[in-house]
Amino acid sequence: MVRVCVDAMGGDEKPSVVLEGIAQALSQDPDLQVLVCGARDVVVPFCDTHTRACALVTTQTIDMHEHPAEAVRTKRDSSIVQGCRAVKEHRADGFFSAGSTGAIFTAATLEIGRLKGVKRPAIAYAVPSTSQHRTVFLDLGANADVRPNALVQFAAMGRAYSRSMCHVKQPTVCLLSNGRESTKGSQNILEAHAALKVAGNWFIGNCEPTDIFSDYCDVVVCDGFCGNITLKTIESTMKFVAQRLKQAARTSLGAGIGLTLAAPAFRAIKHDLSGEEHGGAVLLGLNAPVFIGHGSTSQLAICQGTLACADAIRSNLVSKLAEDL
Amino acid sequence: MVRVCVDAMGGDEKPSVVLEGIAQALSQDPDLQVLVCGARDVVVPFCDTHTRACALVTTQTIDMHEHPAEAVRTKRDSSIVQGCRAVKEHRADGFFSAGSTGAIFTAATLEIGRLKGVKRPAIAYAVPSTSQHRTVFLDLGANADVRPNALVQFAAMGRAYSRSMCHVKQPTVCLLSNGRESTKGSQNILEAHAALKVAGNWFIGNCEPTDIFSDYCDVVVCDGFCGNITLKTIESTMKFVAQRLKQAARTSLGAGIGLTLAAPAFRAIKHDLSGEEHGGAVLLGLNAPVFIGHGSTSQLAICQGTLACADAIRSNLVSKLAEDL
Repeated sequence: MVRVCVDAMGGDEKPSVVLEGIAQALSQDPDLQVLVCGARDVVVPFCDTHTRACALVTTQTIDMHEHPAEAVRTKRDSSIVQGCRAVKEHRADGFFSAGSTGAIFTAATLEIGRLKGVKRPAIAYAVPSTSQHRTVFLDLGANADVRPNALVQFAAMGRAYSRSMCHVKQPTVCLLSNGRESTKGSQNILEAHAALKVAGNWFIGNCEPTDIFSDYCDVVVCDGFCGNITLKTIESTMKFVAQRLKQAARTSLGAGIGLTLAAPAFRAIKHDLSGEEHGGAVLLGLNAPVFIGHGSTSQLAICQGTLACADAIRSNLVSKLAEDL
Repeated sequence: MVRVCVDAMGGDEKPSVVLEGIAQALSQDPDLQVLVCGARDVVVPFCDTHTRACALVTTQTIDMHEHPAEAVRTKRDSSIVQGCRAVKEHRADGFFSAGSTGAIFTAATLEIGRLKGVKRPAIAYAVPSTSQHRTVFLDLGANADVRPNALVQFAAMGRAYSRSMCHVKQPTVCLLSNGRESTKGSQNILEAHAALKVAGNWFIGNCEPTDIFSDYCDVVVCDGFCGNITLKTIESTMKFVAQRLKQAARTSLGAGIGLTLAAPAFRAIKHDLSGEEHGGAVLLGLNAPVFIGHGSTSQLAICQGTLACADAIRSNLVSKLAEDL
């Protein structure tokens, strides 16, 4: 049995959507146990009616817009803090929440703790491509300022993730820059390039944003500031295209019919890009797997996030990561 | 008469496409004169058969993949260097090329020169939104490392562009960050935020990538590293979506028919985003307007780039910019 703790209070939707997602994950994975944390009236009735679900009652909720460090410090009985504590105390093997990324990062780092030798945990996400290949992309926002040495560590963590979750045997790594040439980039990028070059022959040089969507390399590293902006640019470009297509559908009958027919294909791409179907983002560098629900908090997103966390536990992501460091 | 110098050798396509674009611009704007620079066999026959087109014969071409500074230094008779020199020597009032951005930037800075007080010229582009509003976004790659004071100057240049080209009377400015909160960002961004805050009440705080596609503000500033990655992420997301939709069209009849019907709408969005219909990117901070063809070098892109350069000359972009600095 694999035990995942899931935050019932996290996400943009009401807790019932999270519960539906947990129920779906439980039915799909017969070896899964879920520790459901949240308000009594949310979690207890659910756990009473579902086998392999156990309630962890908490009295506070951290809102998406609260200051992460402040919220984690003051709301000690929140679902996010208590969920992470349950993992620390070995009542669960991993944690999944669709709540505030900053609060999850802070609580997980404090409670679950960093792997020995890890300076800065990072947020990673496996970006889809036009083939079956997925590129592990990190850091997506945990560390706004990153020294070159930290990027070398991100590369090691990204490789461990690519190996255990994407089944790539010898993952290659690129550094995100404004051009593939080794002379391209800010001063910090030039230094990081030099540090990565001596770190291992798995480093194959700089890459550009377009390479993230291809099989050009298996892991792309960058600082959390750039990574976060890149991820949000992908999302907002999708949103912009969707809105403009809707406008076009209203003004042209042909486009309207066409877009109605093509809508499922477009939605599938959007879901794939949002990480909904692949469990969202993962926090790397901690003593247990922590997944963060990314994109809209649909039932599917919760189900897949829970299953991805279970997968990471089964594939020994954390011990593989520890070996690589 | 407005005199624009156009590089006939620039771009991914053969020179004939550029010439067709110039011909289109000449027919659309009766007060336009074009100084066409490039190889003799390209420019002379064209200028012999088109009124208001004058040839500037050059013997060298700078390739897209050459090192910009090196190429500009050694290829003194290239169309890019000679085009910029023509502007310097007042044989034209502005320059447009769809060639290497780095080479155009280097040659224009050297030959045309920076406006008094400008530390670093920047590359700007007016991003489309779901309304008529366009957000001026800079720097898109001229300066990988930027100090906070340079960002304040980018804001002034972006405002001048917004005023003269987008007709916004009192343009507001945001700083691109990984969150709207003033506490978000790298150390450099936090310092830039503080510097912008005291610069003027037109600064309304940080913004996220999604705000670039809306009317949240009129100008978005960032360093050239992040700006270039953001721009390339928009392009590569569009490319990824287009490829995945094509794949879907091959596997589903409904999606295939739908996408055929919706293709013009999708293409229109792609053209709009690529800047093709709006003249591409502009170099701000020089003694004359310099436009850089962005995206695929179609006839339309060349025509619109030439017309945009003529517009910038007519609307006194450079003197408005000088006033603001």
